[in-house]
Amino acid sequence: MNLNEQMTQLAKQAKIASRELAKLSTRGKNDCLLAMADALEKNSAAIKEANTLDMEIGAKLNLSAAMLDRLQLDDKRISAMAKGLREVAVLSDPVGKILDERTRPNGLKLKKISTPIGVVVIIYESRPNVTADAASLCFKSGNATILRGGKEALNSNLIIARTMIDAGKKTLVKFPEHAIQVVATTDRDAIKELLSLTQYVDLCMPRGGESLIRAVTECSKVPVIKHYKGVCHVFVDADADLKMAGEIAMNAKVQRPAVCNAMETLLVDKTVAEKFLPIIGQKLAKKNVEVRADETAWGLLNGKVEKLKTVSEQDYFTEYNDFILNIRVVDGVRAAIDHINFYGSAHSDSIITANEAHAKQFLAEVDSATVYWNASTRFTDGGEFGMGAEIGISTDKIGARGPMGLDELTSYKWMGIGNGQIRT
Amino acid sequence: MNLNEQMTQLAKQAKIASRELAKLSTRGKNDCLLAMADALEKNSAAIKEANTLDMEIGAKLNLSAAMLDRLQLDDKRISAMAKGLREVAVLSDPVGKILDERTRPNGLKLKKISTPIGVVVIIYESRPNVTADAASLCFKSGNATILRGGKEALNSNLIIARTMIDAGKKTLVKFPEHAIQVVATTDRDAIKELLSLTQYVDLCMPRGGESLIRAVTECSKVPVIKHYKGVCHVFVDADADLKMAGEIAMNAKVQRPAVCNAMETLLVDKTVAEKFLPIIGQKLAKKNVEVRADETAWGLLNGKVEKLKTVSEQDYFTEYNDFILNIRVVDGVRAAIDHINFYGSAHSDSIITANEAHAKQFLAEVDSATVYWNASTRFTDGGEFGMGAEIGISTDKIGARGPMGLDELTSYKWMGIGNGQIRT
Repeated sequence: MNLNEQMTQLAKQAKIASRELAKLSTRGKNDCLLAMADALEKNSAAIKEANTLDMEIGAKLNLSAAMLDRLQLDDKRISAMAKGLREVAVLSDPVGKILDERTRPNGLKLKKISTPIGVVVIIYESRPNVTADAASLCFKSGNATILRGGKEALNSNLIIARTMIDAGKKTLVKFPEHAIQVVATTDRDAIKELLSLTQYVDLCMPRGGESLIRAVTECSKVPVIKHYKGVCHVFVDADADLKMAGEIAMNAKVQRPAVCNAMETLLVDKTVAEKFLPIIGQKLAKKNVEVRADETAWGLLNGKVEKLKTVSEQDYFTEYNDFILNIRVVDGVRAAIDHINFYGSAHSDSIITANEAHAKQFLAEVDSATVYWNASTRFTDGGEFGMGAEIGISTDKIGARGPMGLDELTSYKWMGIGNGQIRT
Repeated sequence: MNLNEQMTQLAKQAKIASRELAKLSTRGKNDCLLAMADALEKNSAAIKEANTLDMEIGAKLNLSAAMLDRLQLDDKRISAMAKGLREVAVLSDPVGKILDERTRPNGLKLKKISTPIGVVVIIYESRPNVTADAASLCFKSGNATILRGGKEALNSNLIIARTMIDAGKKTLVKFPEHAIQVVATTDRDAIKELLSLTQYVDLCMPRGGESLIRAVTECSKVPVIKHYKGVCHVFVDADADLKMAGEIAMNAKVQRPAVCNAMETLLVDKTVAEKFLPIIGQKLAKKNVEVRADETAWGLLNGKVEKLKTVSEQDYFTEYNDFILNIRVVDGVRAAIDHINFYGSAHSDSIITANEAHAKQFLAEVDSATVYWNASTRFTDGGEFGMGAEIGISTDKIGARGPMGLDELTSYKWMGIGNGQIRT
């Protein structure tokens, strides 16, 4: 089979599986998830063995130590995957919810009901635990998944999926073999082939860096919900409680800098810059954060921050995922909003202020998935939002926006129930 | 300016306008819509003059009489456009609705709020009244529109948009000049250029036939919600009330065959075919409907229907929009569902039955935007659904599905309101 035939087979199988998945009961799905969790733990020796192969390939590919660390599976990480599956099992079923209900004057009863989306392609990098997380969330929401992880994780991804499928089949006679599939080739053109199959694939979710997202958006003919970078901002308003501002800014930057909801640029109103910057400068210096400052901020921080550089325009677009922070002094809330809408990635942005009018303007006009008033950007997360789990954070506006839990993995249909109504 | 520069300017202007539109009050928007309606009527002489130019171009292009009829504007049609705008003015504002609200254990208040989508490109054919309809719905939902109608309607579309903008500007100082824009070139590559501008354009909605939809899906880098053809079905189950089935089938086929929610294929359970087909055959013959029948149906209809042909497989995929109907005899509800999921366009499908189990299976397993039990497919319509108006009917699953009214033209954002919360 050539690549097109391979991908067509994969997608067609997924479509057929999706029809079967849509019929499974909540109880049946939960039983499968619990069995899958147990199976991952029971099968840990084989999983670690496959992972060792991947680690060897990764070493040959000269992956960085950080990348290799993300790739590695040990008993603790396998247990964490299993725990994740058990948590998904106890979440409420997102399928079959009545989202709207109305009876028309002619007696026709209309119901808007949540349904699975169908076939979901997920493209991601490195960490093999995403395979179990994503597959379990899609399974619970009745979707068939086609998973395409990093090429260095292929052996790990294949055995994780196989373990889950085998457990599902042992638990439920009707468990569809092709509910969870891993793209078994590392051919780069596989994605392009797969994402041209609009008759079978309903959605693609790429999770990762700029180049991955760009490549997927360029080639996809199926709908895409992007899980794009987080260039997040905290704006310290003229009327901010500066103690609170300092605590939130530090939390947003250093509590976990490698994640997408961490702050990359701190915006400070010019009227409080002189008072606030030396304080935050000291705190940042203590945590060894490199600061890239605009001219005004540079003047106020010089001598107080060891790692101080001049910020470039490109820096404002950059997701560092590291102990690096841009600082810019701005003239009021209007300028802060304009900066964020221009340089940001529409992910998570926060205003610190006691001024309600400023806060309301910021919340309304910053065009991001999540906007905060007096809180850290770090809260943008399915767990923190009470969704139980998340498959990622959408920076798109069509379909789901912000954290995507189980409900965000559904579509809907309208049902019209009548007793002979015709249109006149 | 070359085409890329022209389209970039258009899209950039729309993005800026969309930020201003998002700030308008409900009252302000409604006042504009009412003023626009009056202006269309007042400006009817100039609109008809521009339309005459288009009719001349259309005649030169050898458009069919039906196409020319759809293109023509007279006082009655201009008044109908104005009436449409006045109806949109009284609908409730879809922006700023609280869709979800929760307080987290740490005291963080989360609100999920409906927002405009941003910049919406609408691609359509022929009828210039779509310009006013689509622009008004997008305007009310706070979206900037870029409209691309048929090349034969360009003069009409330009003057309709101009009239609406001028009326908006006279009504509201803050009315953004570029809230409604018509692509002023008939260059076919304009669409491709426009739909590559992901930094400015948030959504594209193509409305039309297969070739238009295919062309847009092929080239678009921005999200697309397709308003695709309607290959709709009525299935007469073994346990159907045959009188009701006859009435619904006739309504679905002949009440208005040119629209997307009209039936194209009638499926009949084999156990009632012998009784039902001669009855429906007579009714169809009276309305001069051409029947394309499978072998079994042909045998039962021969001699009873004047225009009787043998159905081909391709016919099952075809939207006739005409007095033509496929008839197929199937073995039970399972076979009916499989036929619809394979040949249909996921638009609107109905089962006629007194058997609740059959109905429930059909409603659950037919993977279409709208599914009916004992009602005509013709009800799939924003007005009939109580949405007040519609911009079209989505056959997609990401974003809106089924009839799209004002609510379906919005996205959402999360707002987190705290008092200093940081993540630990």
